Amino acid sequence: GIPIELAYAGIKNKTKQEDNLAVKEKFLELHHFSIHILGCGSVLNIKGEVEMDAIVMDGKTLASGAVSAVRNIANPIQLARLVMDKTSHAYLTAEGANQFARSMGIEEVPQESLITEYSRMRWRKNLAPDANPVECQMGKAGTVGAVAVDLEGNLACATSTGGMLNKMEGRVGDTPIIGSGGYADNQSGAVSTTGHGETIMKITLARLILFHMEQGRSVEDASDLGLACMQSRLGGLGGVVTVDPQGHWAARFSSNYMSWAAAQRDIVHYGQYSGEHFTQSIN
Amino acid sequence: GIPIELAYAGIKNKTKQEDNLAVKEKFLELHHFSIHILGCGSVLNIKGEVEMDAIVMDGKTLASGAVSAVRNIANPIQLARLVMDKTSHAYLTAEGANQFARSMGIEEVPQESLITEYSRMRWRKNLAPDANPVECQMGKAGTVGAVAVDLEGNLACATSTGGMLNKMEGRVGDTPIIGSGGYADNQSGAVSTTGHGETIMKITLARLILFHMEQGRSVEDASDLGLACMQSRLGGLGGVVTVDPQGHWAARFSSNYMSWAAAQRDIVHYGQYSGEHFTQSIN
Repeated sequence: GIPIELAYAGIKNKTKQEDNLAVKEKFLELHHFSIHILGCGSVLNIKGEVEMDAIVMDGKTLASGAVSAVRNIANPIQLARLVMDKTSHAYLTAEGANQFARSMGIEEVPQESLITEYSRMRWRKNLAPDANPVECQMGKAGTVGAVAVDLEGNLACATSTGGMLNKMEGRVGDTPIIGSGGYADNQSGAVSTTGHGETIMKITLARLILFHMEQGRSVEDASDLGLACMQSRLGGLGGVVTVDPQGHWAARFSSNYMSWAAAQRDIVHYGQYSGEHFTQSIN
Repeated sequence: GIPIELAYAGIKNKTKQEDNLAVKEKFLELHHFSIHILGCGSVLNIKGEVEMDAIVMDGKTLASGAVSAVRNIANPIQLARLVMDKTSHAYLTAEGANQFARSMGIEEVPQESLITEYSRMRWRKNLAPDANPVECQMGKAGTVGAVAVDLEGNLACATSTGGMLNKMEGRVGDTPIIGSGGYADNQSGAVSTTGHGETIMKITLARLILFHMEQGRSVEDASDLGLACMQSRLGGLGGVVTVDPQGHWAARFSSNYMSWAAAQRDIVHYGQYSGEHFTQSIN
């Protein structure tokens, strides 16, 4: 197999040119099995606060770690990883997850450090009675995800998000839900998803795509079948990154765009709009 | 199709004779699409507190509602149902879920009213340094679940639990996780699961069983295949109740026992140990 690291990122409020650069930069920060994705810039809940969700999964053991509704945490994926590695559990939520973070010596950061001017502006705009936060968020979900496979065919996925714009306090979307926001199994593949969380959950999108792969579909076909099911049955839009143990990969989306990038051998592949596929040497 | 209501319940600390009676009584309290399952008797977390998880799912729309780590709620499934019906979300956690409960006029109950002498005794016993809460809980998970199908082939599932004995604060298991603790789809079937939550999540047990049914397996075969996968790949034990849109049903478990009951036409079927299948007229 050929090792691959594949990621997508919601990039907000930038020109197309800037977006592509940002994707590459963000991608090059990612490291296989030690993915660092920062919570800064998260969307805000109805109270104007940041509550974040994240998941990681190890395809070799099927072990996973997830957190939801955590506050004041700069790197929720790191915390999810600690849940996986340092507890007998797979998922901690809210204040219990924050207590665990403190017990692990993770520094809590001021909420203001996670909030950007742009996220505050969108929150305020969506407080209006006629606002449509779901519509406003389409294609700018702010979710960041990645999948990876190493030389031995070991797979992993990681997904992190602030959730839906102006969500209710305590709302949990697809991201920390195993099989919905992500899934990794060395026997089939790894998927990380983004899009309308409540719809992704209805069809357990990540697991659905891997069931198609278990039945012999390619990463691309399986991803498209999962997204098509979500669209035809439920009218929902989303995007995914998918890899198989041999290093075949796909970045597919039914939304208008999804910023994605992949690093394989010495080449970074990236794109944002449908049909785009740029390449650049890493060195 | 023949309408069916099928349920299981963790029954604790009783003789076999009492167990069977309790299952029947508990079952007869259940009502299709308005299942009432009470939180009293839940296991306690490491602090000696009750934190409950629940999910409901409607197979016609794939809509679901879930709550996790809720406190002072007598009927978490009722709250999960309100999340499904009264919000744009599918899952609320912890204090946010309790806030929503208050906004819906659900009375909060004193924690002591949810705690039994037996659950307090087990909690105390499992505080000992050499205790093994997972082992202690085997076959007595305390999870209560149900699936149902009506004359038109509309399916539903509901699952509710206090989780694992002496769990960390904020621990979330399989129960509120769509595709793990339950799943319902009019196109295939409905499943509710119980057992070691962290292991059930690794294989998204409910969704796995329904994938087997989508490929033509019977409710019984599909349930056994899902449980066998959980046991052979991960060494985990559990139990499920499964129905298809035609009203075929199965109550299967790899654990030593699972108390279950089914009502179809005027007959209640019930059992607890492997191979047991008793029947009794409802009238």
